Amino acid sequence: MIKTDILIIGAGPTGLFAVFEAGLLQLKCHLIDALPQAGGQCSEIYPKKPIYDIPGFPEVLAGDLVDNLMEQIKPFQPGFTLGERAETIKKLGDGTFVVTTNKGTEHNAPVVAIAGGLGSFEPRKPLLQNLADYEDKGVAYMIKDPEIYRDKKVVLAGGGDSALDWSIFLADVASEVTLVHRRNEFRGALDSVEKVQQLKNEGKINLVTPGEIVGLKGEGKLESVTIRKTSNAAEDIHLKVDEFIPLFGLSPKLGPIADWDLEIEKNAIKVDTFDYQTNIPGVYAIGDVNTYPGKLKLILCGFHEATLMCQSAYQRIFPDKKYVMKYTTVGGISGFDGSKKEAPKAVVKAID
Amino acid sequence: MIKTDILIIGAGPTGLFAVFEAGLLQLKCHLIDALPQAGGQCSEIYPKKPIYDIPGFPEVLAGDLVDNLMEQIKPFQPGFTLGERAETIKKLGDGTFVVTTNKGTEHNAPVVAIAGGLGSFEPRKPLLQNLADYEDKGVAYMIKDPEIYRDKKVVLAGGGDSALDWSIFLADVASEVTLVHRRNEFRGALDSVEKVQQLKNEGKINLVTPGEIVGLKGEGKLESVTIRKTSNAAEDIHLKVDEFIPLFGLSPKLGPIADWDLEIEKNAIKVDTFDYQTNIPGVYAIGDVNTYPGKLKLILCGFHEATLMCQSAYQRIFPDKKYVMKYTTVGGISGFDGSKKEAPKAVVKAID
Ligand SMILES: Cc1cc2nc3c(=O)[nH]c(=O)nc-3n(C[C@H](O)[C@H](O)[C@H](O)COP(=O)(O)OP(=O)(O)OC[C@H]3O[C@@H](n4cnc5c(N)ncnc54)[C@H](O)[C@@H]3O)c2cc1C
Ligand SMILES: Cc1cc2nc3c(=O)[nH]c(=O)nc-3n(C[C@H](O)[C@H](O)[C@H](O)COP(=O)(O)OP(=O)(O)OC[C@H]3O[C@@H](n4cnc5c(N)ncnc54)[C@H](O)[C@@H]3O)c2cc1C
Repeated sequence: MIKTDILIIGAGPTGLFAVFEAGLLQLKCHLIDALPQAGGQCSEIYPKKPIYDIPGFPEVLAGDLVDNLMEQIKPFQPGFTLGERAETIKKLGDGTFVVTTNKGTEHNAPVVAIAGGLGSFEPRKPLLQNLADYEDKGVAYMIKDPEIYRDKKVVLAGGGDSALDWSIFLADVASEVTLVHRRNEFRGALDSVEKVQQLKNEGKINLVTPGEIVGLKGEGKLESVTIRKTSNAAEDIHLKVDEFIPLFGLSPKLGPIADWDLEIEKNAIKVDTFDYQTNIPGVYAIGDVNTYPGKLKLILCGFHEATLMCQSAYQRIFPDKKYVMKYTTVGGISGFDGSKKEAPKAVVKAID
Repeated sequence: MIKTDILIIGAGPTGLFAVFEAGLLQLKCHLIDALPQAGGQCSEIYPKKPIYDIPGFPEVLAGDLVDNLMEQIKPFQPGFTLGERAETIKKLGDGTFVVTTNKGTEHNAPVVAIAGGLGSFEPRKPLLQNLADYEDKGVAYMIKDPEIYRDKKVVLAGGGDSALDWSIFLADVASEVTLVHRRNEFRGALDSVEKVQQLKNEGKINLVTPGEIVGLKGEGKLESVTIRKTSNAAEDIHLKVDEFIPLFGLSPKLGPIADWDLEIEKNAIKVDTFDYQTNIPGVYAIGDVNTYPGKLKLILCGFHEATLMCQSAYQRIFPDKKYVMKYTTVGGISGFDGSKKEAPKAVVKAID
């Protein structure tokens, strides 16, 4: 059982910044995310695109914002359960909560902060009858650890940024990369499309367009795929592969959280703006996942909500202590890793 | 009469960021500040100190944060009335407001956003009987434009960062710089104290410590000051000077705003967290100056409040229009100066 002070569901920008604000109050955090990486929508949907409305950044790439947040929270050593979906919540007799993921990982904390954004990112899957038989046995919808593809024969499917970018990346890792897309046209960043064209010309990526994966075969694990190029099944290609990665996009689903007896309105969790607590005391909702009068689904609003939430969480965890807020400029940062940041002190010094 | 869409009182970080959010809604802003420069507390009190809790910045100097905000709002061409204090507010028959400063400058807008922080920064003045006679005639408590001191004889008084830093700066501008402080010890950044020591050694700054300005003389304008070094008045120094700058710190006073019929609680203006509007419709209060349940006087909270305020201001100004929020990443930034920033578009391109 993983134990922490604030269990955060969702490692998007809001959940990440909550770690920082909690850390200032000397509270530890652990984050669960269905995605294999931190950053939520910023990392998954538009890592290479600029955001213009983060205060103090005239322009920042979404991926860089996430990197900055990871750097900012480092002193507070957050724990991560990645690639797992928070599935159930249970309140114990001592008032703490246990949250269990779809893979059975259990987490225990006195405070749960749902920072689930638009929901848990779930892959769009191709319609193949025996697909489920090969999941985690040669079929994956997200790439958690690229190293598992080293020297493997990999086939990817899809026509967007993910399919392009992972084909480029794996061309250097896998022994054979085949990219199948049902059209000749790809949709993505110009330099990604051009790079795939170049790798194809160099023979480092096999391109099959238009084409579609119509069958999977293998004993106990994936051994080959069937690619249909024309309506004439006799012309199908049977390709020996170790791994099949369909990248048809991820779409967020509020999912299991919708059944946690929380007050839901327009697919979002109702909260009080005093501390962004839900109808269940001790369970908070911050960022895109919540709703209240005036709510805007913006990153900068999630930062504010996370900050007020942590104050309330502190009171819940230490009902008898009175926390007196100190400016970071004045109090500095004391990391759980023993690191210390502080402003250079003024000196009192004679001039003679 | 200066006319604008949102008149912002206070050019601290909150007021500055409001210009950006208003600009996204194509609303123009004008800011009034009692200080000669933008940035509020960040610029006036701790420009060279690091802040650690601005989301996305593991560390940023307060002065750099202000510079970044100024850069971010540049496309939206805010107007500034600096060095003047907003004194009175009047509602006109057409529902718009007129705000007049202590110098008589009039501003007219349908929406007023008070971002006044802890209040208007007012200088602590030395106790000298005829001080007021020389204000703006040789005596100044803040430095608005350093150029007016070029080739002048200047005497500064004070023992903190401002006195140190301006002495250093003016040593290169004025023909003669004298720094008077009632103790030998100065309190400030180590490198500032050391730099003053060095400039004193080089004869570029005259240091009089311990010492105190006890008299001012001049016909129509300041011509000389009396510096007392010991309790024996016979040993007083009479120094010919053009300018006297006492830098004893600025302290914020809610001041005239306290008389605007706003609901005040603990020296702050009560607002509704739906849109940070005050009890006077059309008048909003954002940042350190407001209060509501859960309020934290933090910069990142001011950013959130400014953002929600602008949505409401838009509805007030255009009651019949429905604004559909667009992410900056998707819609880009269209400056009033004709500038345009936008994310590189995805291409749809065949690979052959
Ligand atoms: C194309 C695009 C452009 C945008 N541009 C801007 C912009 O310019 N400015 C701006 O402010 N905002 C912008 N946004 C919106 C911004 O990305 C979101 O406001 C922000 O990501 C919300 O952060 P969050 O942390 O609340 O949620 P998210 O980023 O959505 O992260 C939530 C995370 O929670 C996880 N999760 C949810 N439920 C579970 C569960 N049960 N178990 C495990 N994990 C779960 C999800 O997998 C996800 O990773 C844009 C969004 C898009 C798609
Ligand atoms: C030493 C120190 C360290 C700090 N460290 C941090 C930190 O680490 N993190 C953090 O988030 N915050 C910190 N703060 C607080 C932070 O600076 C404030 O929250 C922030 O400046 C508030 O911004 P604001 O725009 O609301 O108001 P302010 O910055 O106070 O600006 C208000 C402006 O309004 C002007 N004004 C007021 N009334 C009038 C009037 N009638 N007419 C004209 N002008 C008027 C004032 O002159 C002032 O310039 C710190 C503050 C100090 C002093």
